Amino acid sequence: MHDRLFIPGPVEVRPELLQAIAQPQVGHRTQAYMDVHSATIPLLKKILYTEQDVLLFTCSATGVMEGSLRNLCQKKALLTVNGAFSKRWYQIAGFNGVPADKLEVPMGKAVMPEDLDKALATGQYDVFCAVFNETSTGVRAPLEKYSEVLKKYPDVMFCVDAVSAMAGDKIETDKLGLDVCLAGTQKCWGLPTGMCVTMISNKAMAKAATAKAPGYYVNFVDAKKYNDKHQTPHTPAIPILFGLHAQCNHIVNEEGLDNRWKRHLDMQKLTHQWVKDAGFELFPEKGYESVTLSCIKKPEGFDFKNLNGQLSKRHHCVISNGYGDIKEQTFRVAHMADTKVEEMKQLFKWIDAILAEANVTA
Amino acid sequence: MHDRLFIPGPVEVRPELLQAIAQPQVGHRTQAYMDVHSATIPLLKKILYTEQDVLLFTCSATGVMEGSLRNLCQKKALLTVNGAFSKRWYQIAGFNGVPADKLEVPMGKAVMPEDLDKALATGQYDVFCAVFNETSTGVRAPLEKYSEVLKKYPDVMFCVDAVSAMAGDKIETDKLGLDVCLAGTQKCWGLPTGMCVTMISNKAMAKAATAKAPGYYVNFVDAKKYNDKHQTPHTPAIPILFGLHAQCNHIVNEEGLDNRWKRHLDMQKLTHQWVKDAGFELFPEKGYESVTLSCIKKPEGFDFKNLNGQLSKRHHCVISNGYGDIKEQTFRVAHMADTKVEEMKQLFKWIDAILAEANVTA
Repeated sequence: MHDRLFIPGPVEVRPELLQAIAQPQVGHRTQAYMDVHSATIPLLKKILYTEQDVLLFTCSATGVMEGSLRNLCQKKALLTVNGAFSKRWYQIAGFNGVPADKLEVPMGKAVMPEDLDKALATGQYDVFCAVFNETSTGVRAPLEKYSEVLKKYPDVMFCVDAVSAMAGDKIETDKLGLDVCLAGTQKCWGLPTGMCVTMISNKAMAKAATAKAPGYYVNFVDAKKYNDKHQTPHTPAIPILFGLHAQCNHIVNEEGLDNRWKRHLDMQKLTHQWVKDAGFELFPEKGYESVTLSCIKKPEGFDFKNLNGQLSKRHHCVISNGYGDIKEQTFRVAHMADTKVEEMKQLFKWIDAILAEANVTA
Repeated sequence: MHDRLFIPGPVEVRPELLQAIAQPQVGHRTQAYMDVHSATIPLLKKILYTEQDVLLFTCSATGVMEGSLRNLCQKKALLTVNGAFSKRWYQIAGFNGVPADKLEVPMGKAVMPEDLDKALATGQYDVFCAVFNETSTGVRAPLEKYSEVLKKYPDVMFCVDAVSAMAGDKIETDKLGLDVCLAGTQKCWGLPTGMCVTMISNKAMAKAATAKAPGYYVNFVDAKKYNDKHQTPHTPAIPILFGLHAQCNHIVNEEGLDNRWKRHLDMQKLTHQWVKDAGFELFPEKGYESVTLSCIKKPEGFDFKNLNGQLSKRHHCVISNGYGDIKEQTFRVAHMADTKVEEMKQLFKWIDAILAEANVTA
């Protein structure tokens, strides 16, 4: 039997969405395709609170993290580093010969806006990249505060990796002045992997048009040209588009945006309460906790492998170990996508019961 | 009702494969994922006749066409140009700042091995790129002859776009000495888009390890590192992997490789006979016709739109218009993936009937 996923991506996909992705294929230059594409984009814009472009790239988010640097950086990029995925974005610059500096703080902490301001004031940078929701540490960056800082530097492109937050944690992209906001479909979108949903500002698009070697597969200008005629430049992941169309309809017209944001906040609140009651401690510093996943410190001698094994064996579900450098010190529970508050309550009851037994036998 | 696709990709996907892709998701760092990944790769190696690496990238083929140049070209690339997709590969070089020359012949023709030899003899090039099966013109390049030439230039990387041929037209990658052989899943693989299956030689892998700015998302060395532990560096298109696993099993263990190649040759033969009988003419020059798709010249006054409209309306199937510069002069019929000879026979009967009516009313 399949293990229900409480891991921070890929997430559990509703059976209705799995059936949506399994529809027969259509030609990607046909009206049938364009109908689905053109019905999906306006819904994506609502969910991202933007009147600018939302484009679909057939790759995981990493592809567009790389593409953002190649399309937009002409001087030097500044990147926050406070976990595995933000560190990866910094490394991507190196793999592409893009000059880059990092604003690094220890894992579990968020980069402070004052430090961002100080760095940007040097005038060296034309791109700033931040990971909104560090999937490795459960730290949520203070985007609103970064946004205030960025207003002083209108020539700096504000690029946000919203991988494990988009469609779960409300992000008003236009109001925040984001130039790029990207996320793969396998996290809060509640779909399998395959596409990267990307909001791109008009300002970023204008700058991308002046790039010397922007690359071809993730090319903002080309993607917009095709998107304007309800297509993509390269054959898209049609099954994922079918799923995304169904899911956007669900989010906007069935669940409702505000209800979706509230449900995620409710799941976060419940999880924090459980963490406290169970005697655990969150890994992120207070005030910077992710809304969509919780990274929790392992107490001394905590047997994660046994816990997850028992969850799988008895209840056909799994949570996640820590990631990267803090793999041994932490574990993670996702509360994202289409998970219900009641499912989280049930999960915590199961975990409590397993841990209680372990204590008895310990 | 859904139109059955006789277009050169995306192709019709068998219902069993659509159900395979709609399985519940698994974590991409779990044993459940690794079991499917590690069961699929050896089957892919059989289908590609290689003992070297076969890697999976989550993007359409264009992503790996770009990646091949970035990972492998350190001097200058030489690319055949004889259609829309080979022209694209040449353009990709420009978008990436990779120095490149083209060996161009008119559409419908194949680049001759003598010309390739002459160009390589200049010693300028370290990468040679050829499109095996030009989806726009239906021209099949003489890979065996290119292979003979390349033996004289062991330092030149031999990269082949096999997009609309791989898994339909037999390609013995090791015997041909290919360094890269790539194809998206939405053509002869008989699956939806989402992954690019890529054979990479040990020689190419060694060279990629010395690249200065190979890029990150399509990074050969990184992809191999993860593939060796039955994973991918970035979250893969898990639904497509599920489908690919089922399809590889079908190809190797149910249909059988030789039967699959023979069925494609039979469909080609049938199509050529129909073209002749119906008074049409093939677009490619004789001796260089694709095994998997036929590009056919439109006779004077030929109403393709009516033909395809009637096919859709009466028989719920579609063929394809021409592509790019020869869109108005040609139309295309795909005979690839899991299409049966009987289905092609039926399709041609339907087309004949529609054309007979059109002649009467003309």
